[in-house]
Amino acid sequence: MDSGRLAEIWSNIARIRPLILHLSNFVVMNEQAHVALAIGASPLMTLHPDEVAELTAISQAVVINIGTPTDEGMTAMREAGVAAAAYGRLLLLDPVGYGASALRTSLVDDLLSTSRPKVIKGNHGELAGLAGRGGSVRGVDSVGATDAASDCRTVADQYGALTIATGPVDYVSDGGTTVAVHGGVEMLTRLTGTGCWLGSVVVACILAAGNEVEGAVAALVAYGIAAEKAHGRAGSAGVASFRSAFIDALGSLEPSDFADAPKRIVPS
Amino acid sequence: MDSGRLAEIWSNIARIRPLILHLSNFVVMNEQAHVALAIGASPLMTLHPDEVAELTAISQAVVINIGTPTDEGMTAMREAGVAAAAYGRLLLLDPVGYGASALRTSLVDDLLSTSRPKVIKGNHGELAGLAGRGGSVRGVDSVGATDAASDCRTVADQYGALTIATGPVDYVSDGGTTVAVHGGVEMLTRLTGTGCWLGSVVVACILAAGNEVEGAVAALVAYGIAAEKAHGRAGSAGVASFRSAFIDALGSLEPSDFADAPKRIVPS
Amino acid sequence: MDSGRLAEIWSNIARIRPLILHLSNFVVMNEQAHVALAIGASPLMTLHPDEVAELTAISQAVVINIGTPTDEGMTAMREAGVAAAAYGRLLLLDPVGYGASALRTSLVDDLLSTSRPKVIKGNHGELAGLAGRGGSVRGVDSVGATDAASDCRTVADQYGALTIATGPVDYVSDGGTTVAVHGGVEMLTRLTGTGCWLGSVVVACILAAGNEVEGAVAALVAYGIAAEKAHGRAGSAGVASFRSAFIDALGSLEPSDFADAPKRIVPS
Repeated sequence: MDSGRLAEIWSNIARIRPLILHLSNFVVMNEQAHVALAIGASPLMTLHPDEVAELTAISQAVVINIGTPTDEGMTAMREAGVAAAAYGRLLLLDPVGYGASALRTSLVDDLLSTSRPKVIKGNHGELAGLAGRGGSVRGVDSVGATDAASDCRTVADQYGALTIATGPVDYVSDGGTTVAVHGGVEMLTRLTGTGCWLGSVVVACILAAGNEVEGAVAALVAYGIAAEKAHGRAGSAGVASFRSAFIDALGSLEPSDFADAPKRIVPS
Repeated sequence: MDSGRLAEIWSNIARIRPLILHLSNFVVMNEQAHVALAIGASPLMTLHPDEVAELTAISQAVVINIGTPTDEGMTAMREAGVAAAAYGRLLLLDPVGYGASALRTSLVDDLLSTSRPKVIKGNHGELAGLAGRGGSVRGVDSVGATDAASDCRTVADQYGALTIATGPVDYVSDGGTTVAVHGGVEMLTRLTGTGCWLGSVVVACILAAGNEVEGAVAALVAYGIAAEKAHGRAGSAGVASFRSAFIDALGSLEPSDFADAPKRIVPS
Repeated sequence: MDSGRLAEIWSNIARIRPLILHLSNFVVMNEQAHVALAIGASPLMTLHPDEVAELTAISQAVVINIGTPTDEGMTAMREAGVAAAAYGRLLLLDPVGYGASALRTSLVDDLLSTSRPKVIKGNHGELAGLAGRGGSVRGVDSVGATDAASDCRTVADQYGALTIATGPVDYVSDGGTTVAVHGGVEMLTRLTGTGCWLGSVVVACILAAGNEVEGAVAALVAYGIAAEKAHGRAGSAGVASFRSAFIDALGSLEPSDFADAPKRIVPS
């Protein structure tokens, strides 16, 4: 992918203004909505089973993030998965804390088998768990996953889903091809929810690209570029200033920002 | 209303420090509390039916915002409506996403008939739905409402409630008189929840004014002025910087900021 | 405690990176996670009863904050209290709005008797209620508590818990010794949730100190220093700018920042 194509995908988001239904967690819901709006998408949020089918029908994509499960919310997630399949909507699953509790593990396993999400996005530890290599999560944080590219490919293959593994290096795999995306700054790990927000950016980019791999790669590239711009502008002030600067940057990337983007993408 | 009266209403908020009970949505709850505190009110938040009557009794006003309905929260909203009527507390209803799902539509219709809110505040699309002209919402965002002033008047008349329609131009109507309030910046639509936060500002201003129309107009005028100040200070940096600057501005408006305010208010 | 010891405790947080399980309220959950991460801890959040025991087992401490109770969340809090006792995890209870409703009062009383939290942290009004002197809360805000040091000691004694009373002056008591901690800025009271965030900082410092009184005092001292730095940098811009600057400051305190710290600590 050249820089022109990446910039085109990014600017397409605001042009198509996709309506993205979110069933997300209480910690990140506010900032995830801010991020989705900032990049030009239109976020819609619910956790109620009784409106999930209707809201899925009017949306272009659905993001399910299990970070703070409730009984009602889990029912809504199952309904959303079924509705997304029924209406052919792009469904992304973010298995937050997979492996940290039996509740999360069984919810995710259930959603994977009944909803067949088109995209799975997790950190290295969560993907290690999904790939059948447990023991790499600490709460909702990833620790010491040593073979992220391979886990990413395994999960993609196992679930027939485009899979994104986030970490110091990000990976995208459709089972066949696996690509590493470099970039970003360490400070992203000192802000809660940046992995969760990314879910919204990924589906927006896939819709804007009309292609899953290209969209996912564009999202990761843009995320890294925005993080680096934000770090340059506000990183020295601290994490909260960086947070604002990062959302600012996501909302104002220009085509020229993608000039060096292709070298961030490395076949794996 | 002259600028002195508008400034007086605004500064009265901090003097009377109204306790405002919120039953609000998960996306905006944090920032809505920040905004309420910033302008000098005292926010209190719950979604539990069993404490709603007691908390209504100690509050001066109740804001119900249905943005992320849960079964328990909807029960609490119904209880809050009943309690507000019983205790004579100022009740504002924000029908987020009215028309987007049967669940939201029936909840709002139910609250309107059983609680008789004194104030209804929605975007142009939601008010078009309430006025019986559907099809103007897209998720929780308004699209293409063409007759907002008339819808605002219709809803006010239909429900016997002061009605506020937010959009590129805002309208306030008590059924008899309808007023347009100009101001604000387009960037407000790129921040999630700014319409929701306004609900808290409106009830605070109504309590501070001791008059519904004057309070609602003062709230809309102040909101527009604060948004313009924030845009001047931080708009070029991006949406998150604008967000901070907007809350900063709401928390520090001075009487002199209202100097040009009267010309923003136009009979409709 | 000398400044070297205070700085040592603070820097220990990032070294031990404690996993802190939070059962917290919807208003503050996002910022509480940001603060916990900023100071070097690792936050984990849930409100679901079925995963509370497992998540407690992998955590070093548990923070229960009852600010927006739900039925499911209250069950989870009770389970977390039992699990913390069973696993010997440091448990802090934040009785938000104690006295404001029967629901909150009975939940807190229940948690106190069944979970025996090691730390209780509340504002002056909440502690006056816990000490058996009601009538000092207004919603979730404290008003006019006149004998905070004595209430703090009474609660510590009554419940056998290290007790922290926050207000214009903060107090820490283990029943025997009571210490006043001076510092901070008035603007903290114009931001929602700063008292709630402190709960996370207190348990992180206690774990980092290996001592309850020293940890609690270090947390209060650091909080005051960070607030003053933030106020100097951004206080004049407004509350939202102060909020960012405060979280920035919490995330970047240096040993030299503690130079004048000992004089903030006064036996009471």
